[in-house]
Amino acid sequence: MPHRPSTTPRPPHTTWKHALWVGVMIVSAQSARTQVFVNNLMPQPSSLTPGSGSLALTSTFAVQIAGSSAENDTRLRSAIERATRRIEMATGLPHAGTGVTPTTPLHLHVDRPGEEVQTIDEDETYTLKITPTGIDIAAKTDVGAIHALETLIQLVQPGPQGYILPAVSIDDAPRFRWRGLMIDCARHFEPIPVIKRTLDGMAAVKLNVFHWHLTEDQGFRMQSLVFPKLTALGSDGLFYTQAEAREIVAYARDRGIRVVPEFEMPGHSTAWLMAYPELASGTTPTSIRREFGVSDYAIDPTRDETYTFIDRFLGEMATIFPDAYVHIGGDESPAPDWKKNPRILAFMRQHDLKNNDALQAYFNTRVLKTIARLHKHMVGWDEVLTPGLPKDVVIQSWRGGDALTKGAKLGYEGVLSAPYYLDGMKPAGVHYLADPLPSTADLTPDQRKLVLGGEVCMWAEHLSARTIDSRIWPRTAAIAERFWSPESVQDVDDMYRRLEPISIELETLGLTHLESGDAGLRELAATEDIEALRTIAAALEPVSFGERYHAQRTNQLTALDRVVDSVRPDPPSRHFIELRVKRFLTSPTTDTQDRTYLDAWFTSLTTAIPIVERQMHTSPRLADASTRVAQIPALAAVAHQSLTFLASGQHAPTGWKTAQLQKLAEAKKPSALVRFNFLEALNQLVAAVPD
Amino acid sequence: MPHRPSTTPRPPHTTWKHALWVGVMIVSAQSARTQVFVNNLMPQPSSLTPGSGSLALTSTFAVQIAGSSAENDTRLRSAIERATRRIEMATGLPHAGTGVTPTTPLHLHVDRPGEEVQTIDEDETYTLKITPTGIDIAAKTDVGAIHALETLIQLVQPGPQGYILPAVSIDDAPRFRWRGLMIDCARHFEPIPVIKRTLDGMAAVKLNVFHWHLTEDQGFRMQSLVFPKLTALGSDGLFYTQAEAREIVAYARDRGIRVVPEFEMPGHSTAWLMAYPELASGTTPTSIRREFGVSDYAIDPTRDETYTFIDRFLGEMATIFPDAYVHIGGDESPAPDWKKNPRILAFMRQHDLKNNDALQAYFNTRVLKTIARLHKHMVGWDEVLTPGLPKDVVIQSWRGGDALTKGAKLGYEGVLSAPYYLDGMKPAGVHYLADPLPSTADLTPDQRKLVLGGEVCMWAEHLSARTIDSRIWPRTAAIAERFWSPESVQDVDDMYRRLEPISIELETLGLTHLESGDAGLRELAATEDIEALRTIAAALEPVSFGERYHAQRTNQLTALDRVVDSVRPDPPSRHFIELRVKRFLTSPTTDTQDRTYLDAWFTSLTTAIPIVERQMHTSPRLADASTRVAQIPALAAVAHQSLTFLASGQHAPTGWKTAQLQKLAEAKKPSALVRFNFLEALNQLVAAVPD
Repeated sequence: MPHRPSTTPRPPHTTWKHALWVGVMIVSAQSARTQVFVNNLMPQPSSLTPGSGSLALTSTFAVQIAGSSAENDTRLRSAIERATRRIEMATGLPHAGTGVTPTTPLHLHVDRPGEEVQTIDEDETYTLKITPTGIDIAAKTDVGAIHALETLIQLVQPGPQGYILPAVSIDDAPRFRWRGLMIDCARHFEPIPVIKRTLDGMAAVKLNVFHWHLTEDQGFRMQSLVFPKLTALGSDGLFYTQAEAREIVAYARDRGIRVVPEFEMPGHSTAWLMAYPELASGTTPTSIRREFGVSDYAIDPTRDETYTFIDRFLGEMATIFPDAYVHIGGDESPAPDWKKNPRILAFMRQHDLKNNDALQAYFNTRVLKTIARLHKHMVGWDEVLTPGLPKDVVIQSWRGGDALTKGAKLGYEGVLSAPYYLDGMKPAGVHYLADPLPSTADLTPDQRKLVLGGEVCMWAEHLSARTIDSRIWPRTAAIAERFWSPESVQDVDDMYRRLEPISIELETLGLTHLESGDAGLRELAATEDIEALRTIAAALEPVSFGERYHAQRTNQLTALDRVVDSVRPDPPSRHFIELRVKRFLTSPTTDTQDRTYLDAWFTSLTTAIPIVERQMHTSPRLADASTRVAQIPALAAVAHQSLTFLASGQHAPTGWKTAQLQKLAEAKKPSALVRFNFLEALNQLVAAVPD
Repeated sequence: MPHRPSTTPRPPHTTWKHALWVGVMIVSAQSARTQVFVNNLMPQPSSLTPGSGSLALTSTFAVQIAGSSAENDTRLRSAIERATRRIEMATGLPHAGTGVTPTTPLHLHVDRPGEEVQTIDEDETYTLKITPTGIDIAAKTDVGAIHALETLIQLVQPGPQGYILPAVSIDDAPRFRWRGLMIDCARHFEPIPVIKRTLDGMAAVKLNVFHWHLTEDQGFRMQSLVFPKLTALGSDGLFYTQAEAREIVAYARDRGIRVVPEFEMPGHSTAWLMAYPELASGTTPTSIRREFGVSDYAIDPTRDETYTFIDRFLGEMATIFPDAYVHIGGDESPAPDWKKNPRILAFMRQHDLKNNDALQAYFNTRVLKTIARLHKHMVGWDEVLTPGLPKDVVIQSWRGGDALTKGAKLGYEGVLSAPYYLDGMKPAGVHYLADPLPSTADLTPDQRKLVLGGEVCMWAEHLSARTIDSRIWPRTAAIAERFWSPESVQDVDDMYRRLEPISIELETLGLTHLESGDAGLRELAATEDIEALRTIAAALEPVSFGERYHAQRTNQLTALDRVVDSVRPDPPSRHFIELRVKRFLTSPTTDTQDRTYLDAWFTSLTTAIPIVERQMHTSPRLADASTRVAQIPALAAVAHQSLTFLASGQHAPTGWKTAQLQKLAEAKKPSALVRFNFLEALNQLVAAVPD
C-alpha cells in the first residue's frame, strides 16, 4: 500500500440530536404537501429539467423494452427486476404475479447490450423522462440504462396520497470515464457478501471500477491453481476461490462495474515469498508479515525465472479477470537486498542500471511485456513512473494532484487517489471539494484528456467485515458525485443534505454503515441499553489510520474491537451542528432557537456521563474511552458559557477566552483512539465571544 | 405448513427506557468489583459448581488436544479456532501469530471424533473445569467438545483488571436428543448467509437439528438434477443449488447440527405440480400459488408413476442430505380431487380405502418403502398418524401436547412443536414454560422415551431476510434451554436476565435481530433521526401471523416493508416493565423510584408523538401506525392517573376504573398490524387502584 498522503489536521466537528427533527421535518412536510420536486439525486445529473405534475405509484411497472437487445438481454432484464423490486419495497407496492397486474408504464430503449467486457470507453449516457403518464428511458447500452434505473429509484418521493415520481427530464453523462473504489482485501480479508453489497452501493452512486487489492505482505487472497502455494502458505486460509472471483466479476458486470485486480510486485510481496522463496531478492520471510508499513522483502527482478513465474501467474489471472487493465502495485519497495546482493549488483552493472529505481523500471518493463501479450494495460502506483517507462501505463496517483499533473505532462494517463483516502477519517466535504482535474489545472486540452478520473481508496489495516461499510459509506457517495457530475456542482451544504437520503438508500441495499456502530456499542456495553452510550459515541469519531497505528501499535493480529471501531467518521450531525453554529453566530442576541438547541445538545452529553461511566466499570474494553468522557463536562461548560456571553452580548472577563481555548487544545490531544467531532464548532463559538 | 395452534390472546406488555440503566448497572458494577461469579449461561448446564478464584485472560489460548482424534480432527480444530477468535474479540486479546505467544492453557480430551453422519444417539455430554491456572474440557465426541466451547465463551466475564474466566466445574448433558429449529425457506426464500448465521446462533444455544422446510405451494427451493423443472418452473429462480445445500450440511455438521430436509407431500405441493402436472390428482395449477393457507392441489397417490418419481427424487436428495431422517410434511391436504376423480375413487374402492385419510395412509406407507430403502426414517406432521401407519415414523406435533401424548401411547416417537410457533409473536416466557414432556404427563417410562424432544417453528408468510432474525432470536434461545436443561429450570425472571447477554452474543455472531428494526425505521422515516420513532416503536410489537394475514390479506407478493416489519416481538423491556409494575404494586405509597420511572416512561411516549407525526406526513408507509400513535396520549393519561391514585392511596372516583378499562379495551382492538406491548402492565395498574 502506498504511504498515505500527509494528513493535515482536520477540524473536528459535532453531532446532532433530536431537537433538530423539528426544523428538518417541518420543511419536508411542507414540501410534500405542496408536492415541490425535491432533488435528492446523488450524483447530480449533468442536466435536469423539472416537469409539471407527477406520476402516482399505485402499481408496479409494466415494462416494455425496445431496441436491438430487447429480446435476450439478461443483464438488462435483471437490472430492471432489481430496480423494480427496490421501488416496490420503498413504496409498499405488491410485486407483479398472479392477481397483481402492473400498470405503471416503464419504457426502455437500449441501442445495444454493451461490450461483453466493459471498457473504459463504454457509453454510459442515458436520458430519463418522467411524465404523469409514464417513464421513458433511453440509453446507448445497458450500462446507461442501469444508471438510469438507479436515478429512477432516487427520484421516488412521498406525495400527499402515497408515493410519486415527479415529472422530470434528465439528460446525463459522466464527467470521468474511470470512477473507482479500491478495497484492500489483503491486510484484512473481506468475505464475498461484503464485496457484493459494496458493489451494490457502488452501482447506486454510479461508480464503475472496483479495484480489488488482492495481495499484500499480510496475505495473498486470490487462488491460483498454477501456483497453489500462494494461498496455501500465504493466506491463513482466507482467500477467494477462482469461482468466487468469477462470480464477483459477473456480479460487477451486471451493475456496469469493471473489476481491476491488483497483484503487488516487486514490493509488498511477503505473502508471495512465503510461498515461493526462490523468487526473493535474498532475504526470505519465515512467516506471513503481521506488521504493517513498508517491508524490505522484494521479488528478484534479475532472474528470468521471476518473469516466467509472473507470466504464468498473470496469464492464469487473465482467465478470471477479463478487464483490459491489471494493476501491479509497484509502490514502496525499498528492497535493501538490491543494494547488497552481489548477484543483483552485478546484474545492475551489466545492464547499466544505476540504482533501485532503474532496476524497478527494468522490472516494470519486463512485466509490461507479459501484460501486453495478454492484450492488457498496466496500472501502477506513482512509483512506477520512472524514466524510460513505456507510455502505455496508467499511473494511479497516491502522492497528490501534482504527481498526476506531472504524469499527464509526460504523456501518461492517470487516476487520482491522493485526496480520496478514506482511512484519514476526514469529512465527506473535504473529499468532495478535491477535484481530479480542476479547471485551474496547468494542463493542455490534450493533457487533460489523460486524466481518466479518480479512485477512492479503502486500506484495511484497521478494517473488519463489521466496520468496513461505515468507513466507506456514505462518504464515498459524495466522492462518486465528484467523479460523475459537472465540476460546477460544489455546494457542500447541498451535498450533505442529499447525503442522508442516499445513506438510507445504501442501507436498504444491505450495507451496514448505519447499524454496525450500535452493534459494536451493545457488545462493548454488554447490554441493549445504549442510549446514553450512543449519545456520547455520536460526539466521537475515529482518529486517522496513522494516529491509531502509532498509538495502538496495531498489526494484523490486533483485535479490532475497541470504541474506535464502533464510532464512525463524519456522522451527518457534524455538518448540521456547523450550520447551527453558523446561523446562531449571525444573530446571537436574538436567535434563541439555535441557542436552546446547542445548550440542550451539550447538556445531553453531560447527562449521559454517569450512565456510561457505570457501564465502563463492567466493560474493560469500553473503558478505553474513559479519558474522553472525563473531558466532556469542561467542554460542555465552555459551550454553555460561550452561548451565554454571546446571547447577552457581554464581554468575557479578562483571560477567559485564553483559558477556554486552552481547554479545547487539551481536548484535541490524542487519547483513546477517538477524537471529539464538535471541537471546531465549539472553537467558533469561543472565538466569537467579545473580549 | 400446518395450520397454526389456536392463538390464545396473549397479554401485551411494555418496554424499557433509560431510567432503568441505573438499577441494572449498579448491580453489575458491584458484581464485577467483588468478582462474584455471574451465571449467564443459556442453556443452563445440568450441573455447575462454582470454584474459587478465576483465570485472568491476559493472552489467547495455548491449546492442547488429547484423545484418539487429536491429530487429524479438522472439525474439532476449526471449532477451537472459531471459539478462540470469538473470545479474543470479546476481550481485546491479539490472535496468536508472529510475536504473539499464547499462554492461557486450554486442554481438550475427546475420546473420538463422533459419527461421520451425526445421529440422534450422538453422545453430546461434556465436562468443563476452569481453575485459576487453566481450562480442561473432556467429551466423548467432538459434539460434546463443541458444546463445551460454547459454554466457555458464555463464561467470559469482566473483572477488575480486564476479562476473566471464573473458576467453575460443569458437568453437562442435554435433556432431549432432538432440539430443533425449523425454518420455512419456501414461502419466502432465505439466502445462504442467513442460513449460516442461523446455524451459528443454533450452535451457540446448543440446538442440534436444523429442519429445512424446502417445498411449499409457493416455491420449490431445492435443486434437483433429475427433475430440473422443479426449480425451473416452481421457484421463481430462488432456490438452493446442490452445492449450496451440501455446504450447509457440512457447515451444520461442523457445529454439531443435523440437517433434516422436508419435502412436502401429498399436499402443499403446488410448486411440484407446476413443474410436473402429470403428478396431480386432477386439477393442475397454472401458476405458482401466491396465496397462503391450505391449497386444494395434491399429488396423486394412486399412480405407480408417482412413487417412481418420489423414489428417484428422494434417492437423489439422499446424496445431498445424509441425515437418517427425512421429513415428508404430510399435513393439510384436503385434496378434493380425491373425492371426485373417478379414477381415484375407483382405486380407493379397489383397495378398500374408506376416505382421504385412508388414502393418505396408503400414500405414506408406499413412500415409507422408499425411505426405508434409503435406510432412513420418515418424519411427518400430525396428520400422517393414521390407523395402520408403521411404527417407524416420527410424528412432529403441531397440534399440541395431547397429540404428542397420543402418539407416544400408540408407540410412535414424537417431536413437539405446537407451543414453539414463533409467528404467534408470543413472549419468550410463554414458550419457555411449555415443556415437551412435563413430569405430569400421563405416560409410562417407556412411552416417555418416545418423546425425542422439541422443535421451534419459523413459518415464512411474513418473513424476509431482513426480518427473520428478530423473529427467531432471542426467543429461540429460551426455548433451546427448555430442550437442553433440566425440567426444574423454570425461573422466568432469571431466564429473561440471561436472555440479554445471550442476545448480544448472538449479535456478535452476525445475527441482525437487534439492528434490523432500526434499519427499517430509518427507511420508513427516510432519515437517520429515529430517536422519537424508536421510542414509540419500542412500545409496539407485531400482531400474530393470523391477525396480520387477515387484516392485510397478505400473499407471497405483498411487500413486507411496513411498521410491523420493523418492530419485534417481546423486546427485553416488556418483562422489565412487568417487574417494575410488580414491585411498585407491593408498596405503591412509598416506592417513589418505580413511580417516577413509570411516569417518565409514559411521558417519553407522548413527547415523541409530535416528531413522529411530522415524519408520518412525509412517509406514507410510516403513516400505517398513525392510529396507534393517536391512542397514546389517552393511555399515558391512564397510567399517570393510576400512579397518582396508587401513590396517594386515594380511591378513584366512581366510574373512573370502568372508563379506563374501556380505554384499554379500545386499545386492544386490531389496528395498524401492530399492538401495544404495555397494555397488560397498564391493566395491572388500573386494576390495583382502590375503587
